[in-house]
Amino acid sequence: MKLATLAQGGPDGTLVVMSTDGTRFLRAESVTTMQQALEQWGGASAELEALSHRLADGEGEPVEAQRFAAPLPRAWQWLDGSAFDTHGKLMQKAFRLNPVEHDKPLMYQGMSHLFYGPNDDVPFPREEDGIDFEGEFGVIVDKVPMGVSAEETMRHIRLVVQINDWSLRVIAPKEMKTGFGWIQAKPACSVAPFAVTPDELGDCWADGRVNLSLRIEWNGKLFGDAHGGEMSVGFHELVAHAAGTRPLCAGTIIGSGTVANTDYREVGSSCISERRGIELIDSGEATTPFMAFGDTVSMEARLPEGGSVFGAIRQRVVKATAGR
Amino acid sequence: MKLATLAQGGPDGTLVVMSTDGTRFLRAESVTTMQQALEQWGGASAELEALSHRLADGEGEPVEAQRFAAPLPRAWQWLDGSAFDTHGKLMQKAFRLNPVEHDKPLMYQGMSHLFYGPNDDVPFPREEDGIDFEGEFGVIVDKVPMGVSAEETMRHIRLVVQINDWSLRVIAPKEMKTGFGWIQAKPACSVAPFAVTPDELGDCWADGRVNLSLRIEWNGKLFGDAHGGEMSVGFHELVAHAAGTRPLCAGTIIGSGTVANTDYREVGSSCISERRGIELIDSGEATTPFMAFGDTVSMEARLPEGGSVFGAIRQRVVKATAGR
Repeated sequence: MKLATLAQGGPDGTLVVMSTDGTRFLRAESVTTMQQALEQWGGASAELEALSHRLADGEGEPVEAQRFAAPLPRAWQWLDGSAFDTHGKLMQKAFRLNPVEHDKPLMYQGMSHLFYGPNDDVPFPREEDGIDFEGEFGVIVDKVPMGVSAEETMRHIRLVVQINDWSLRVIAPKEMKTGFGWIQAKPACSVAPFAVTPDELGDCWADGRVNLSLRIEWNGKLFGDAHGGEMSVGFHELVAHAAGTRPLCAGTIIGSGTVANTDYREVGSSCISERRGIELIDSGEATTPFMAFGDTVSMEARLPEGGSVFGAIRQRVVKATAGR
Repeated sequence: MKLATLAQGGPDGTLVVMSTDGTRFLRAESVTTMQQALEQWGGASAELEALSHRLADGEGEPVEAQRFAAPLPRAWQWLDGSAFDTHGKLMQKAFRLNPVEHDKPLMYQGMSHLFYGPNDDVPFPREEDGIDFEGEFGVIVDKVPMGVSAEETMRHIRLVVQINDWSLRVIAPKEMKTGFGWIQAKPACSVAPFAVTPDELGDCWADGRVNLSLRIEWNGKLFGDAHGGEMSVGFHELVAHAAGTRPLCAGTIIGSGTVANTDYREVGSSCISERRGIELIDSGEATTPFMAFGDTVSMEARLPEGGSVFGAIRQRVVKATAGR
């Protein structure tokens, strides 16, 4: 089942069920927003499934001028992991950071009151802050009790999404050194238009991992095509960690962190910072610049047989307008 | 003006305006929740002010069996500063931490989808995690544009609140070392019942600081009575820092961090960890234990002339029930 949110009808938008190819949609009657669907999943999913079947039979309104918001245009909670060890190790080596000692998954709490839609322009105050994209996958859960096991969390993972976790790289290491995590270095993220139930991924959802490559283009040029399967811990373990001392509300989004692979020289990277790190290791100098105003980035995961799963993120970074 | 949220009528509760002494209330008609009031402050505040005047004239329903929720039982954003330098320095010295280098205010993003009401029992999974309270003040803003100056943020500070930022001290230093901030070490906070407009504090609101002492009792025994005026940066500077690269949504709560004073030997501490730190410095051994299930903590700031401002937090810590 493929769900999306149209950017109409209030700050939470309007929930729609999509056809598998993402070209047609139907509105639900029992719930009008994605947040409501997640809060009432037991009751709402039957209707959503029925709409999905009708779409498979060719019904539905064609997507034309409608604009997609993020599946959850705002969420009560966004917790982002860093589950691709390759990325962390590369960054430590390149930037001579102290190894991060941890016996639990790495995770920070991020800004959740705004997620950009897949085609929104993304405003930043200054190029000098080091504007960078971070391609990753995420899951959205329904209500998760405190202290559940990783295995138990599997049935709470209702939707899978594709995320661009925008980062400001000049600010990030300074904030990280305080131990308090990131505030200014991690403004709002962007999310691809379609949130899909795990079964929609078929065999590509396994062991709490999204076994798909995430193709990233920067200004129309291939930048990375790393595979989601190399997470050192699966999403179910990230969710269990998040719920270790707190219940998770329905609609909590949990991210994988930057997708990265051990064969990064073949597949490329999912953020500029990692490529710069590799350049530093190789030549002692990072030559790839960060993003400039007007630059575009696109991100899209595709099924092995070629179909788009989450739809594409296609965005442009722009200078923030003062006072907005 | 003194506002509160009754724990009735949905997850966001029901907004009421309180009499100054906190014994009577009136419901608003134009807005029914605190979040709505903050989103529509320009339009809603006139009605709320009018109700406040009627309460001053003796009108209103007496507070009887009603239960208060946190002023915002859930918020889209909770950002907690660490603005009392005395606390940070004491902790560094006691626990031999590396000095935190920072030229900007310290701040982390915390869990915001649940705030406990002032009299709710507070569940934790294990005593062994080092259950601790942290008494602090906070402000709630309306919508703040990205990049505003500290001075400009002053007019966005709509309400002042009193917070207990629960912390798990055995987990906290490990999470801090990752640089990612706290997840398991910082579950939901509690908030005192009344959120007040800055003018309600009179001269005790000055330079973005709450010039009141926060009296804390642990199991009925005085633990600390530190003064809110010693913030090294004011709330307006914390808000401006938070809005450096993101707009803040209406209803964002910004905390001061643990209230601490240079004369901590006279006034005591606002968290157990700080007292343990002082013991370590003095004798090489921390002898005060953390909280046990069944323990109570109360926190209340009072005006110089004796009136309660935010009402009292009076809570008991309990063992979390599995699966809830």
